[in-house]
Amino acid sequence: MFKWLTSDRDKGTRAFASVADGLQALYKEKLLPIEKDFSFHHFFSPELTDADFSARPMVMLVGQYSTGKSTFIRHLLGRDYPGLRIGPEPTTDKFVAVCKGEMDQVIPGNALVVDKSMPFTQLSHFGNNFLTRFECSKLDSPVLNGMSLIDSPGVLSGEKQRIKRGYEFEEVVKWFADRVDMILVLFDVSKLDISDEFRRVLLALKGNDQKIHIVLNKADRVTTPQLMRVYGALMWSLGKVIDTPEVSRVYIGSFWDEPLQNDEQRKLFESEENDLYTALAQMPRSAATRKLNDLIKRARLARVLAFLLNHLRNKMPSFMGKSKEQKKLIDNLPNVYGEIAKEKSLAMGDFPDPQLMREKLEKMDFTKFPKLDKKKMDALEKMIHEELPQLLKLTTEEAASSQ
Amino acid sequence: MFKWLTSDRDKGTRAFASVADGLQALYKEKLLPIEKDFSFHHFFSPELTDADFSARPMVMLVGQYSTGKSTFIRHLLGRDYPGLRIGPEPTTDKFVAVCKGEMDQVIPGNALVVDKSMPFTQLSHFGNNFLTRFECSKLDSPVLNGMSLIDSPGVLSGEKQRIKRGYEFEEVVKWFADRVDMILVLFDVSKLDISDEFRRVLLALKGNDQKIHIVLNKADRVTTPQLMRVYGALMWSLGKVIDTPEVSRVYIGSFWDEPLQNDEQRKLFESEENDLYTALAQMPRSAATRKLNDLIKRARLARVLAFLLNHLRNKMPSFMGKSKEQKKLIDNLPNVYGEIAKEKSLAMGDFPDPQLMREKLEKMDFTKFPKLDKKKMDALEKMIHEELPQLLKLTTEEAASSQ
Ligand SMILES: Nc1ncnc2c1ncn2[C@@H]1O[C@H](COP(=O)(O)OP(=O)(O)OP(=O)(O)O)[C@@H](O)[C@H]1O
Ligand SMILES: Nc1ncnc2c1ncn2[C@@H]1O[C@H](COP(=O)(O)OP(=O)(O)OP(=O)(O)O)[C@@H](O)[C@H]1O
Ligand SMILES: [Mg+2]
Ligand SMILES: [Mg+2]
Repeated sequence: MFKWLTSDRDKGTRAFASVADGLQALYKEKLLPIEKDFSFHHFFSPELTDADFSARPMVMLVGQYSTGKSTFIRHLLGRDYPGLRIGPEPTTDKFVAVCKGEMDQVIPGNALVVDKSMPFTQLSHFGNNFLTRFECSKLDSPVLNGMSLIDSPGVLSGEKQRIKRGYEFEEVVKWFADRVDMILVLFDVSKLDISDEFRRVLLALKGNDQKIHIVLNKADRVTTPQLMRVYGALMWSLGKVIDTPEVSRVYIGSFWDEPLQNDEQRKLFESEENDLYTALAQMPRSAATRKLNDLIKRARLARVLAFLLNHLRNKMPSFMGKSKEQKKLIDNLPNVYGEIAKEKSLAMGDFPDPQLMREKLEKMDFTKFPKLDKKKMDALEKMIHEELPQLLKLTTEEAASSQ
Repeated sequence: MFKWLTSDRDKGTRAFASVADGLQALYKEKLLPIEKDFSFHHFFSPELTDADFSARPMVMLVGQYSTGKSTFIRHLLGRDYPGLRIGPEPTTDKFVAVCKGEMDQVIPGNALVVDKSMPFTQLSHFGNNFLTRFECSKLDSPVLNGMSLIDSPGVLSGEKQRIKRGYEFEEVVKWFADRVDMILVLFDVSKLDISDEFRRVLLALKGNDQKIHIVLNKADRVTTPQLMRVYGALMWSLGKVIDTPEVSRVYIGSFWDEPLQNDEQRKLFESEENDLYTALAQMPRSAATRKLNDLIKRARLARVLAFLLNHLRNKMPSFMGKSKEQKKLIDNLPNVYGEIAKEKSLAMGDFPDPQLMREKLEKMDFTKFPKLDKKKMDALEKMIHEELPQLLKLTTEEAASSQ
């Protein structure tokens, strides 16, 4: 069912790919050298991997069991993914990353987290109990050019499952929620109540509320008045759990290949399905913009770090009293920030948290900091002020032309 | 539009009237004499007035301005009520009790609260500022045989209106909410947001959540997908304000005489309207049951009071040490309760709060308490165990025969 992936919408996917390539090239050539010179990875965050650039935007599906998560993925792809299981009982027992591949293949969790070309390496933290319940299902589908899909085990009620699982389900959901671009929360008209377990899952999504889209599935299984009751009750309880004044978008319909059972609301369901596909199709483009935005932020931070360490090195006396001076500088960090900001016309908001910097700086020898390399810094400026905005224009121009 | 008041449903109204008459007769003949003998009105609550029995069940309408409250009442009655004003600007500026009358008549607030045959005497507490903004609109309509309707001024946002009103709007709403049998909260699809003022009104309904029925009015003014957005958003925010896990019933439709603008959801709207009318038509019967229940409770309390005071009187010494004994009895009240309960086979749950009784008893002379009058007490027993259950059967039998 990828009729929704029209050539127009496919442009979003292409914009994503070209922006990702552009960002990666710029990063390696201009930003990474400065990050290495000034120990950016020691101060802030590790070097970006290829996967950080090339990984497609991700959509995670969560929901109570049997709400139709796996069926929805099959419907989107227009085919089964390798390892897919669908049924009225709790079926999916693993987290499955459904990703683009040349041919059908299932990669088990332990192998997956050592593959640096995939964005899952950090998941090794969750240990073996989780890794045996995590896999990647690769297949060739045009839908997967623009995104990867994360299928998840349905939430059951009761304590037993937690013990059986042997890993912190909500922690894993949170890990994904922080990284994916969209979270589809599925409900089923016949399972009105939100179990305590599922409430905890929803709480794990806190902080990523913007990404949440809710699907009220199997809406054709009840009469219209019943549907209104169910939908109203769902919103009523969700409003209590999700603590934002903005209402999450809800898509009401039946998201699979079968004909509608009660088709009174066919028009509504079709328009809802169309809205959801539009949101999915637009995701690659907005993911590209977000990645670009993140890289600009990172570059500004690296620039500030370079100026700061250079400044600290220059302030050190040539012969004696080094450690005393170093202590003084650390104590005076906010003033040091002010001086640099003024001298280089930088925004104070670009500077990192002084407390965090103090801790990191304490164990370092300021005289060992490298000098500024003017050529490298000029290249960085050019990247921030010319090349990245150029890439940004690329995404918006393509967006405009695809309207 | 009282097509909904079919002869079948009208039985509820008649059941109410006959139960009310029966209750009043029993009260005056059997309960009131004991209440008087044992100062029930000093200990607990004032003598029941004729209005307490005969007052019809009441329905209050509240909502932001222009949501169609007055129009809804006109639609129910099938005609204008005297003094009715309808318009797109804030129109109703008074609380209007729309009641049964032989002919059209408007009774202003000050006259209304001195009329003991009407259930509004306590409203005089709210003072003149309120009373000039309160009136009773009498008219002859079959709908009003079974209920009275309370129209209310629409809630505006902003502080100004509160000053202009000169009385505590929310306090008045709360007074009515505690006394009416049903509260209809009207929303209008074009006024999505719940203003701070209206939020306070909803909070004033706390404790009466069971009575709340929500009407999403003018639902034909938007497309179906828009209606779903509006309805979802309404439930989302209501769930945050109304703090019960049970979802309030919502009726979606257009409650006036005009034809639907967008009739895609005609079937839904008709079934919703029918549900609401059914709930309205059932109200008199459930109001009768509730009144009956209240009187049983009252009779059990009066019985316990009579036994208690009699017991206390009997315990008093004939000559000396009266005040000392009286103090001891008061301190030992829970034990005294236990003794009486055992002796007379009464439920401990029937006894009043000892703390409250202590305060009232302190200033009284136990030797002045009257003796039990066996004939009166036997009559009370008969009322509790035979006559009231008889009346109850009447309401349920009529209910069964009208199914
Ligand atoms: N739109 C739909 N309408 C009616 N039934 C559906 C719909 N989608 C799925 N189902 C049925 O619901 C059942 C559960 O589907 P599925 O296995 O996809 O759910 P799931 O959310 O993946 O469950 P689990 O959490 O156990 O993995 C299956 O029997 C499936 O055929
Ligand atoms: N079901 C309906 N569909 C569309 N318009 C309606 C409907 N009911 C009422 N209206 C219109 O809405 C406006 C407000 O109606 P009305 O005066 O009854 O509201 P109200 O809630 O009583 O307002 P107020 O709080 O100011 O007294 C009027 O113009 C009326 O014609
Ligand atoms: Mg599944
Ligand atoms: Mg009005």
